[in-house]
Amino acid sequence: AVYGARKMEDYGRFLVLLASALLVGFVTVIFSLVWVFHYREGLSWDGSAREFNWHPVLIITGFVFIQGIAIIVYRLPWTWKCSKLLMKFIHAGLNTIAMILAIVSMVAVFEYHNISSIPNMYSLHSWIGLTAVIFYSLQLFLGFAIFLLPFAPAPIRAALMPIHVYSGLTIFATVIATALMGITEKLIFSLKNPPYKESPPEATFVNCLGFLLVIFGALVLWMASRPHWKRPSDQTAKVLWSTGEPPGGTEAESTMTDGSNADKSALRISSEAGRKQNLKADEAGQRSTM
Amino acid sequence: AVYGARKMEDYGRFLVLLASALLVGFVTVIFSLVWVFHYREGLSWDGSAREFNWHPVLIITGFVFIQGIAIIVYRLPWTWKCSKLLMKFIHAGLNTIAMILAIVSMVAVFEYHNISSIPNMYSLHSWIGLTAVIFYSLQLFLGFAIFLLPFAPAPIRAALMPIHVYSGLTIFATVIATALMGITEKLIFSLKNPPYKESPPEATFVNCLGFLLVIFGALVLWMASRPHWKRPSDQTAKVLWSTGEPPGGTEAESTMTDGSNADKSALRISSEAGRKQNLKADEAGQRSTM
Repeated sequence: AVYGARKMEDYGRFLVLLASALLVGFVTVIFSLVWVFHYREGLSWDGSAREFNWHPVLIITGFVFIQGIAIIVYRLPWTWKCSKLLMKFIHAGLNTIAMILAIVSMVAVFEYHNISSIPNMYSLHSWIGLTAVIFYSLQLFLGFAIFLLPFAPAPIRAALMPIHVYSGLTIFATVIATALMGITEKLIFSLKNPPYKESPPEATFVNCLGFLLVIFGALVLWMASRPHWKRPSDQTAKVLWSTGEPPGGTEAESTMTDGSNADKSALRISSEAGRKQNLKADEAGQRSTM
Repeated sequence: AVYGARKMEDYGRFLVLLASALLVGFVTVIFSLVWVFHYREGLSWDGSAREFNWHPVLIITGFVFIQGIAIIVYRLPWTWKCSKLLMKFIHAGLNTIAMILAIVSMVAVFEYHNISSIPNMYSLHSWIGLTAVIFYSLQLFLGFAIFLLPFAPAPIRAALMPIHVYSGLTIFATVIATALMGITEKLIFSLKNPPYKESPPEATFVNCLGFLLVIFGALVLWMASRPHWKRPSDQTAKVLWSTGEPPGGTEAESTMTDGSNADKSALRISSEAGRKQNLKADEAGQRSTM
């Protein structure tokens, strides 16, 4: 009973953090829209500053918010009864949407720059941002080839999963850092009378947007790196059984783990229990839905 | 023999990464000095732009490079024969130096702003930077009180260690993001003829500095989050033995772990072996040095 209460408490804590992340992420999207519609020229695709304005809106919606959701989608306990393959498709699908929105948002800037005769790729923001998009695309392609297509053998998957997780979280953090540079640039360039340094309402409002992006990133990184909130590795167990290997203590288990297991000893017990409990739930889920 | 070769290979990989991080970190410090001495007005403490120039130099030296070293200092295998307490003092000491340099660098900016009648704390850079310094100081104070002073009981330490590790890495990433915003601001404000967008040599040079900061951060985060490069928990084992608890599988073990254990199963074997090997090395070290 004490153990059950502890599990419930932990589940409650997860829900509070998830609700916070969704709320903060949603608010950043709203803030980006208020920024471009209330303080700036609005949105359109005509080569004007209105086309540029798609850049912050699509980056915050796609490359921050949707990417953040894609990162934690395996953590949602009610998805643990879904097949791992389905969850991989959702993870890859959300990341694909994020990548497309990021690329469209870059096209908006390049077109705006070219029409306004502003040089491209001169700023640190553009250097790091383009690098992030390239690595993100590479990550998506390699992730698809290795973890979704059925060709890579389990030891390869196990060896590459920690790198996939590390790259994913590092790219995500880099994207937020790039967004902060972009906000800084845009506020300096577009606020003239009064300028940024005199803190007009737009400056304060968009500073808050930047602050919220950091909070969103911190919440996602916390949820992604708690070992006891990981999806239990029942699917792996099944695969391993079918290939004749024992289910525990093998390299392939790390296919399901992520780059963080800080308090492993403390939480081994609850994760083991969760795994068993989940195995039943999963079987039940498969029976009822397939 | 195969196992030994694998260990050696892994040790070699750690040394390559460490050398890369030290080199990249050292180059960022050199770049910050070249920036202020070759492209800017140099350094002095006279309220002029030369006083402002301490800001990037001290931030990159202290808040990025030294903080980065402080994060990975437990990972250096040749320190595993030193007492855990000594390593904690080195970790806390490096972080204290970093904090002092960060505060001095902020004083330089405030003095420069006040003398030049530039408003303080209007930019996103300043908001997030000040928040990072406050959280960093809090982290240092709490870390000292909980993990260095002998009062906190082991379960409290174990429960708080994952938070300490997560906060540390998140603050470190936030500091680098803030440095990138600062670079962006400074290049826009100080490059006038030709401006930033025309990519004068200083712009390209300092963009490279920003890029190197991201690479340094990525290297430190990789080294800090590999579970098999963690300091073996022999000291904990001893403490636990002396208090009558068994050495493995208890909550207190996480006192030594960090926020990442991606491939735990694959590496349990080598970490167990390393632990045993290290216990001997540690005893030998204690005999020869104490």
